[in-house]
Amino acid sequence: MAGSKAHDADFYDGILEYNPMLRKWIQGVLDEDIGRGDITSAYIVQKAHRASASLISRGRGILSGINVFKMVYEELGVSLKWDFFHSDGDRLGEGDKICKFEGPALGIVVGERTALNILQQMSGIATYTDVLVQKISHTKARVVDTRKTIPGMRILSKYAVRTGGGVNHRFGLDDSVLIKDNHIAAAGGIREAVDRIRKLAPFTVGVEVEASCPREVQEALECKVDIIMLDNMEIDLMREMVQLIGNNALIEASGDINEHNITAVAETGVDFISVGALTHSCKAFNISLVLE
Amino acid sequence: MAGSKAHDADFYDGILEYNPMLRKWIQGVLDEDIGRGDITSAYIVQKAHRASASLISRGRGILSGINVFKMVYEELGVSLKWDFFHSDGDRLGEGDKICKFEGPALGIVVGERTALNILQQMSGIATYTDVLVQKISHTKARVVDTRKTIPGMRILSKYAVRTGGGVNHRFGLDDSVLIKDNHIAAAGGIREAVDRIRKLAPFTVGVEVEASCPREVQEALECKVDIIMLDNMEIDLMREMVQLIGNNALIEASGDINEHNITAVAETGVDFISVGALTHSCKAFNISLVLE
Amino acid sequence: MAGSKAHDADFYDGILEYNPMLRKWIQGVLDEDIGRGDITSAYIVQKAHRASASLISRGRGILSGINVFKMVYEELGVSLKWDFFHSDGDRLGEGDKICKFEGPALGIVVGERTALNILQQMSGIATYTDVLVQKISHTKARVVDTRKTIPGMRILSKYAVRTGGGVNHRFGLDDSVLIKDNHIAAAGGIREAVDRIRKLAPFTVGVEVEASCPREVQEALECKVDIIMLDNMEIDLMREMVQLIGNNALIEASGDINEHNITAVAETGVDFISVGALTHSCKAFNISLVLE
Amino acid sequence: MAGSKAHDADFYDGILEYNPMLRKWIQGVLDEDIGRGDITSAYIVQKAHRASASLISRGRGILSGINVFKMVYEELGVSLKWDFFHSDGDRLGEGDKICKFEGPALGIVVGERTALNILQQMSGIATYTDVLVQKISHTKARVVDTRKTIPGMRILSKYAVRTGGGVNHRFGLDDSVLIKDNHIAAAGGIREAVDRIRKLAPFTVGVEVEASCPREVQEALECKVDIIMLDNMEIDLMREMVQLIGNNALIEASGDINEHNITAVAETGVDFISVGALTHSCKAFNISLVLE
Amino acid sequence: MAGSKAHDADFYDGILEYNPMLRKWIQGVLDEDIGRGDITSAYIVQKAHRASASLISRGRGILSGINVFKMVYEELGVSLKWDFFHSDGDRLGEGDKICKFEGPALGIVVGERTALNILQQMSGIATYTDVLVQKISHTKARVVDTRKTIPGMRILSKYAVRTGGGVNHRFGLDDSVLIKDNHIAAAGGIREAVDRIRKLAPFTVGVEVEASCPREVQEALECKVDIIMLDNMEIDLMREMVQLIGNNALIEASGDINEHNITAVAETGVDFISVGALTHSCKAFNISLVLE
Amino acid sequence: MAGSKAHDADFYDGILEYNPMLRKWIQGVLDEDIGRGDITSAYIVQKAHRASASLISRGRGILSGINVFKMVYEELGVSLKWDFFHSDGDRLGEGDKICKFEGPALGIVVGERTALNILQQMSGIATYTDVLVQKISHTKARVVDTRKTIPGMRILSKYAVRTGGGVNHRFGLDDSVLIKDNHIAAAGGIREAVDRIRKLAPFTVGVEVEASCPREVQEALECKVDIIMLDNMEIDLMREMVQLIGNNALIEASGDINEHNITAVAETGVDFISVGALTHSCKAFNISLVLE
Repeated sequence: MAGSKAHDADFYDGILEYNPMLRKWIQGVLDEDIGRGDITSAYIVQKAHRASASLISRGRGILSGINVFKMVYEELGVSLKWDFFHSDGDRLGEGDKICKFEGPALGIVVGERTALNILQQMSGIATYTDVLVQKISHTKARVVDTRKTIPGMRILSKYAVRTGGGVNHRFGLDDSVLIKDNHIAAAGGIREAVDRIRKLAPFTVGVEVEASCPREVQEALECKVDIIMLDNMEIDLMREMVQLIGNNALIEASGDINEHNITAVAETGVDFISVGALTHSCKAFNISLVLE
Repeated sequence: MAGSKAHDADFYDGILEYNPMLRKWIQGVLDEDIGRGDITSAYIVQKAHRASASLISRGRGILSGINVFKMVYEELGVSLKWDFFHSDGDRLGEGDKICKFEGPALGIVVGERTALNILQQMSGIATYTDVLVQKISHTKARVVDTRKTIPGMRILSKYAVRTGGGVNHRFGLDDSVLIKDNHIAAAGGIREAVDRIRKLAPFTVGVEVEASCPREVQEALECKVDIIMLDNMEIDLMREMVQLIGNNALIEASGDINEHNITAVAETGVDFISVGALTHSCKAFNISLVLE
Repeated sequence: MAGSKAHDADFYDGILEYNPMLRKWIQGVLDEDIGRGDITSAYIVQKAHRASASLISRGRGILSGINVFKMVYEELGVSLKWDFFHSDGDRLGEGDKICKFEGPALGIVVGERTALNILQQMSGIATYTDVLVQKISHTKARVVDTRKTIPGMRILSKYAVRTGGGVNHRFGLDDSVLIKDNHIAAAGGIREAVDRIRKLAPFTVGVEVEASCPREVQEALECKVDIIMLDNMEIDLMREMVQLIGNNALIEASGDINEHNITAVAETGVDFISVGALTHSCKAFNISLVLE
Repeated sequence: MAGSKAHDADFYDGILEYNPMLRKWIQGVLDEDIGRGDITSAYIVQKAHRASASLISRGRGILSGINVFKMVYEELGVSLKWDFFHSDGDRLGEGDKICKFEGPALGIVVGERTALNILQQMSGIATYTDVLVQKISHTKARVVDTRKTIPGMRILSKYAVRTGGGVNHRFGLDDSVLIKDNHIAAAGGIREAVDRIRKLAPFTVGVEVEASCPREVQEALECKVDIIMLDNMEIDLMREMVQLIGNNALIEASGDINEHNITAVAETGVDFISVGALTHSCKAFNISLVLE
Repeated sequence: MAGSKAHDADFYDGILEYNPMLRKWIQGVLDEDIGRGDITSAYIVQKAHRASASLISRGRGILSGINVFKMVYEELGVSLKWDFFHSDGDRLGEGDKICKFEGPALGIVVGERTALNILQQMSGIATYTDVLVQKISHTKARVVDTRKTIPGMRILSKYAVRTGGGVNHRFGLDDSVLIKDNHIAAAGGIREAVDRIRKLAPFTVGVEVEASCPREVQEALECKVDIIMLDNMEIDLMREMVQLIGNNALIEASGDINEHNITAVAETGVDFISVGALTHSCKAFNISLVLE
Repeated sequence: MAGSKAHDADFYDGILEYNPMLRKWIQGVLDEDIGRGDITSAYIVQKAHRASASLISRGRGILSGINVFKMVYEELGVSLKWDFFHSDGDRLGEGDKICKFEGPALGIVVGERTALNILQQMSGIATYTDVLVQKISHTKARVVDTRKTIPGMRILSKYAVRTGGGVNHRFGLDDSVLIKDNHIAAAGGIREAVDRIRKLAPFTVGVEVEASCPREVQEALECKVDIIMLDNMEIDLMREMVQLIGNNALIEASGDINEHNITAVAETGVDFISVGALTHSCKAFNISLVLE
């Protein structure tokens, strides 16, 4: 079924399109690789030389980041003509041609490594997300990412998770409230912590509390928080807590969840399952740039 | 043998110590996580509150990046007192205490995720490098990285490889010459490509040529290049080429090498074996920050 | 009652303390004023000359930003000794001495204008927020800011609103969802818009819908959104909608609300009242720096 | 008389046109609002969707910053087609259509708030400047700004003052010399301060001295400075000083001047009247963006 | 007379002391040299190794930039102990010891080249300025710089000129008005150009007009400009124009002036003589860093 | 022979073409000159005014940087139409027209000084390099630059040296290893230093050792380093060392070499001669921009 859409991708790109922060990051990573200049290519490849190139999938997985690949060349100032055969969210098979582009050979080789490194990392994340999503597709639970992302790639990692069919948890420390054990200890209790947040944090953000035992779940429920995270609970206890909470809060399961135990977790009835490995331990998805 | 030195670490840190580029990158990734401010901790943890914290290893592997962990807090402006029980290159066992630090609780929790993400990524790279290094320790061959690093983490990834006992290939497009098939095609031959480089590139950098068949190896030898990369060759052909080249150039083996086939490659007599997966497909090494 | 606390300020400063984004902005605005150097002071005030200075309130209002004032000098590299007599959130009277500091005279005069411009702007916002807060203190409604802030001062403006007793709405386009008429039109209805958001946006953020008539309020209620904004409604209609919504969503009133009509709006029973003028049309609060 | 030119605007835009500093600031304020991405619009508005929009004046005042409004979209990378019906310096009436533009709907809504915040702030400054300018149009005196601008908006605030018919004082600490009481005290007298400046400051900049009594005015005159600032003087004393100075220096009046007392000050015969409130306490001028 | 003060240096450093723009530039040039790290020193010099170093003059000239030399190490994060034997403006002889400093050996060698490159360039400019200043010391004329500076070093070049006894012309396009032939042509005459400037430019800046013939000098005089530049005039004509202008404007001579013809120019009675070569064609002054 | 090619320039530009670091530097130096805006031109030259301009050589030398000149205007956002009559590496005579360009007059004059300052500095370096290259053209020796470049202009200075027929030494501390006396002392000998480098530095970079006596040359030879620098040796000793080294390493001569002694040095048989003055003490090459 290579080439079919894994997930609805209609609105994937909007978030990357008008994003000055992303453009600036791309400039930084180009700098990182090019430094003072490509002393191999610039002295061998003549400026007038033109080439066409294709991206070829070297495995089975989900494409993610093809527009970012293109943006790398835009930021480098390489003017290229593009034909796309696949878009983000597509299921790729070994040997599939993803796109073809044509332009100055020097520009293409100077940007190649940076553009590929990003695309392979993102497609790797999307592919692993998809593996987990498939394992729980018979439940209502959804796969969720964390803030355990590779430093610098937060926006792109979260986007890749969505491309693979997952859902995003918060993007940073500033866009929603997650009250953990340290916060509870510092405040003197869940109620005290939630009270402070209700008084000072933007009223527009969601409030989540991490709970590791029934007593904490109960206290969080009484505070009417939006989300309760069941942290490192046994499957049986988790199922019990799902009953207790019912529709009074969204439920997130967390703690060393992977492809082996995710199905059991999902079947407890939780809404969201967060997996750090989605973004910190993925294998890059192999894609080649072939010059013609 | 947990806690023993995996490799001589005397000079690991010098490269990170006076490094404005690294400091700036750290500021960028702190920005990425903190954004407009930590709306949970800042409203719950009082400014005067102090805490002490420990880093605990959650597996077996090689520590890498402990000074970068410390730098993250320096750049964040958190004044901490440190006790170190391990340094980079140390072999860690499950449960080992890596260091202890004490200071303002708010600062500690705001920087925690960013500091840990970096440390875990670096230690993951060092740990996997060490696995490969052990597999070829009976040969003269050394494990080498590539430019297939996670965007933004080039300097730290390369450092982590060294911490794990590997050697670095070039850091970017500007610090040595690597003539690949595209360059050879553009120049019209290996000799033509090397001639142009000799005329225009800094005479201080090494020159490496990628060769995928005996004819190309022969041509590279005639050009007296410094390094010949045997690209995607069968083991038998590789062994033959090692004989052909002898001491006339350094020899690097490359192409889909992993923990399963690296020993056979090393035993052909090559000097260096480059492995992209070292830096693009590592599992993060699990380390916890425990507040006391 | 000058000098008394207007509002609980215990946690005001935490958000500004470990904030790389704020430090960088301060450097930018110092650059803006100093440019290539202070060609008056640097040629007249001798480097060894020391001075002490006081900040004096020139009116009645709420202090906000005193730690930012201090940070300006830290970023400028001026080493000063400080005595604080007031902290953020304090109610100031004419002539009150806010703080005293001592150090190199040249550094003090070079940073003066930038530091004062920030402090006066922030205290102006806090003061006007307090005026509105007092007018509705007999109701449960709270004063809320908007994204109509002075470009560049978003973080500090929102902080100042809190210092004056107000609550923050979202900080940017990325930290909560606000579905406006344009979005509803683009999606083809409130339900369609909310469905897309539920599928793609982080599940941790709150979802608010702008409603300008009973039908829209009803539709938003059916979508179980977190917050409903009553946009530009007559007081009577607003009261009716408050009844309709009950405890099923938080209610925000919006649209040309000012010190003259805010009491009537608050008495309808809404939870939050957003006022753009809080942050885009404030008078700076006059504070003098007196050198001794 | 809405729509007529308030002031000659022929050369207003040149200063903003080739201005790398301004472009960079715009990128910064876009970042401030957009952050990691617009999580409402990007998930609702389809990329291919196009829209046209108009800017409508919601009051009576002077337009300022329409080209900066356009630059915001340029920096965001939104390709738009524009029709302008008014230009900077135009006198606007309630309901006047300022311009119309057409392009991608997503880009338009992402940049809207930032672009409007700037335009409203600038037009607010121009409008208040115009109010003061009208009050003294029967005299030779001109309205002048100060360095009491909103941090980050110095260039744009000063431009807005010119659009409203005012004149600019210095832009920063580096483009002219203003010797204040602190400088005089540090140097040991006006003569000593001026001597140092004459020896060390660029000979191309103007030299102004702040004088608060006849003796200081006399001393400044003897030093042949370019400009004398009459600081916080009573109207009668000011008139007397104007006589004393004659054509031997330009005369600036300063100190708590506002729409109520500016006419009396102007009639003393001073050349310039500086008003801090022009740029630190203006009301934003209300302009709506209407999508069609 | 080595070691004696060439010029009064009391206030030289103030302008560099609190200068965020300078600090940022220093970080940039450290980056330029260090890049991804000093791969020689960091692997050879042990972190704990300490050293002391001296700066030794290798010629006769004027010291300039010794505090900037120190700042380079501050920005690099190298903690050093300093003893200064000379300060900026001092006349150095061959072999003079300028200063001694002590600290981590690795830090000293990493920053050495960058710190020396700056110091040698600045001292070269100061030394050549001094040569010209000596040649006209019997006249009232003063040596003046231009905007023909090495890109990036404007602030430091201008500072070096002052250290050598020269005076600064404007620092950039924004701090004073210089009306050249192109401007006169575009405006349609000197009067038209000056009128536009008087109407739109800050009233605090000086206005200079470039004049290449008596008619233009006359027109400039009638416009009562502050400074008239006699551009590329013969000595006799220049002398005549000095008479014509008298005390009605400051007079600057300009155009291919060097050590051979500067005395004749000065003796015409002009006030200022601008020399582009001061800052664009200087020989670096040789200073060695000797490690002990 | 003005206008003829001094050196083969086919591949000069590639290195500057896709170079984000260079683009960013250009923005910085435009900022340096323009600051808050060109207060002369912007108020005099009307936006619609167009002009054409030519660059004219004012001496005899080698052109270098003409594409960087063009990039300055691109970064400034000035849209120009270009005709080039010369390219980098061309030998220019007095009065030669280098190029002609046409576009908005305001943009042309705002960018003029910055663009010219760069071009003149680069052409000055190329011209002086060419002088030295001609003096040794009968030998195999090549002229080499150093890291003694003007801060900020490293990439452009090195490019200019190539344009003049020279060769580049390393670009920074990170792209090759140069072991100096301090390193040898710190390591305890040449062998110890080389051993550490072989263990820790990228195996792809060249290794050079500075030697000042026969014993050090011998030790370096035994370590099989790539390059031996003969530092400050007498001509006779140098010739002897060239014999000793033979083909076993590349040989670089260094130490106070200039146009007077370079021929004698070259005739000893060394491969490379490094000259700091190439990049730190050049006279700018005079080129005028003539508006028509």
